[in-house]
Amino acid sequence: MNQQSISRIMHRAKVEAILFLSLENIRYLCGFSGSDGVLVISGQERTFLSDSRYEEQAREEIHDANFKKYKQKIEGLARFLGALGIKRLGIESNAITYEDYRKLQEKLPRISFVPLAKEIGSLRVYKGAEELEKIRRAIRIASGSFTDTLSGIKPGVRERMVAENLECRLIRRGSHQPAFNTVVASGPRAALPHGVASDKPLQKGETVVVDFGACFQGYHSDETMTLILGKPDAQQRKIYEIVRRAQEKALKAIRPGVSFRRIDAAAREFIVRAGFGKYFGHGTGHGIGLAVHEAPSISPKARGVAQEGMVFTVEPGIYIPGWGGVRLEDIVRVTGQGCEKLTGLSKDLEENILVR
Amino acid sequence: MNQQSISRIMHRAKVEAILFLSLENIRYLCGFSGSDGVLVISGQERTFLSDSRYEEQAREEIHDANFKKYKQKIEGLARFLGALGIKRLGIESNAITYEDYRKLQEKLPRISFVPLAKEIGSLRVYKGAEELEKIRRAIRIASGSFTDTLSGIKPGVRERMVAENLECRLIRRGSHQPAFNTVVASGPRAALPHGVASDKPLQKGETVVVDFGACFQGYHSDETMTLILGKPDAQQRKIYEIVRRAQEKALKAIRPGVSFRRIDAAAREFIVRAGFGKYFGHGTGHGIGLAVHEAPSISPKARGVAQEGMVFTVEPGIYIPGWGGVRLEDIVRVTGQGCEKLTGLSKDLEENILVR
Repeated sequence: MNQQSISRIMHRAKVEAILFLSLENIRYLCGFSGSDGVLVISGQERTFLSDSRYEEQAREEIHDANFKKYKQKIEGLARFLGALGIKRLGIESNAITYEDYRKLQEKLPRISFVPLAKEIGSLRVYKGAEELEKIRRAIRIASGSFTDTLSGIKPGVRERMVAENLECRLIRRGSHQPAFNTVVASGPRAALPHGVASDKPLQKGETVVVDFGACFQGYHSDETMTLILGKPDAQQRKIYEIVRRAQEKALKAIRPGVSFRRIDAAAREFIVRAGFGKYFGHGTGHGIGLAVHEAPSISPKARGVAQEGMVFTVEPGIYIPGWGGVRLEDIVRVTGQGCEKLTGLSKDLEENILVR
Repeated sequence: MNQQSISRIMHRAKVEAILFLSLENIRYLCGFSGSDGVLVISGQERTFLSDSRYEEQAREEIHDANFKKYKQKIEGLARFLGALGIKRLGIESNAITYEDYRKLQEKLPRISFVPLAKEIGSLRVYKGAEELEKIRRAIRIASGSFTDTLSGIKPGVRERMVAENLECRLIRRGSHQPAFNTVVASGPRAALPHGVASDKPLQKGETVVVDFGACFQGYHSDETMTLILGKPDAQQRKIYEIVRRAQEKALKAIRPGVSFRRIDAAAREFIVRAGFGKYFGHGTGHGIGLAVHEAPSISPKARGVAQEGMVFTVEPGIYIPGWGGVRLEDIVRVTGQGCEKLTGLSKDLEENILVR
């Protein structure tokens, strides 16, 4: 299946082989789930190279690929590549460090290295049935964990404790680990889009942004809820509704053929018109799968259009320094006609008011 | 304190500024604990650059540094660097991707980029009192969690369940997250040095390698225990004792002025002489701190000597495909005379036999 995409990339870039270094692409292309190694695809031939620590695991896990052991990564890789007798090598240039690149190039002066970033970056944008099922599993683990945690979210409890409860539940329900540092940002801290849980206690009347995710067999979920601890005041209600409607606008804009920019603009323009444009500093969404953040990017500068089978987040937000913030995030899959929301937790304000 | 080391690196490399990209060095040098941004040190002046998502966090956290916001990372960084009017820029070449490097160089054709990897790699090798205290805290969290988990390690329980129990306890005791994917490798799987916990149930008589770590305020612990689920047979006893004594040899070899190679050799030669040399495929240890693996490396090809204040692991192992394996890992701090073991769990065989 993916050999076609690879062959196309090779053909266009006029390279005889490609060196993959990102663990996500390596897992995608040959099944290895460990944390060190490289994959070389030369024509139709795939070789996964790693050291002795991963030999048994590699032999168990990899499919459609040979295994080759090295002692020193760059030396072993250079020897292997040198023996291929190729002239042009594609390199996953946003996954190799400059240090490794220059050492490798130094050892292989006769091979032209061709940086491939964008070309390879889109390799995983279409999710197959098995991938989709894993993402759905991750989402179910995460939403179940969140629901179980809800009763412990109340005034007096520290943000950190909420995150601990949630993360333990994620692990218990089968997430190999939390997908990322759980965000629990309350009151003024909700103005931090990436406000990792702190020791701050939650207070009555505050908004609490909770951004969390699970990881199932390498595939991630990512969802953000904004809770209100008590009856929302006028400003909370107003901002929440703007974000919710902005998200709705973006969701409605999604269908095959619509540009990512237009999807971003659908949410952004609504927020701008409401007068809060300068408080929405990030993109509207990002692809998700083996990486928490991957192609496509849904942002004002993004290129490309949505196509059936793509999976990405839709997560507008408003962050007002000193006051706080609101973000609502769902994951969607682009369908033939529009999009299907994969995440299931309600983003209605009334459902997210916790009065205790 | 660290400005001296930085000035020395700049002087030797004849650069007027250094671009730091690794999150560990950024945290070390200016206190930012988020997950995106760069730090530029130009002479005595430090500037941390990031996007709007991290603005508030950066302003709260950073010390001895200015904050500058960019919209697009490479563009914003290029503009900032271009305005410095410098000719030679040191770059953390093992932290920048080749893709970012070439984009940046393209935008700044007049600046010579000087790759600094080894030079910067040793920046954090000496641990100050505060750092040491955080490592000790991480170790206490981890060993307490392990001890609490012990009663659940018995025949019939799946590796994954052991890891879940341990990881939840790590989080509960204050580890921001497990330091890495917990290894629980039993029976033949113990031959996988990085055998992340699987669905395999533990069986009576098996050896179980458990490699786990906590993270406290960015600082990590890393410790490996090998348990025997029942009375050890002759081979288990023999291999365990070889690894234990090999570790002891390495620990005894550590003192200021002794080369890392000699420390590695102390353990390795003992294992080789016992006839198991080919089953010990990895280095004897690695530095630990803000990263789980950092300088120095304690291996056959390592350069440099131990010095007071360095902190690293000592973890020989024997891995026999089909049979299983044993690894014992402690963390030490080099003292004036020798070394102090920071990890406290007993590595005596008798203490690690679990008969139920």
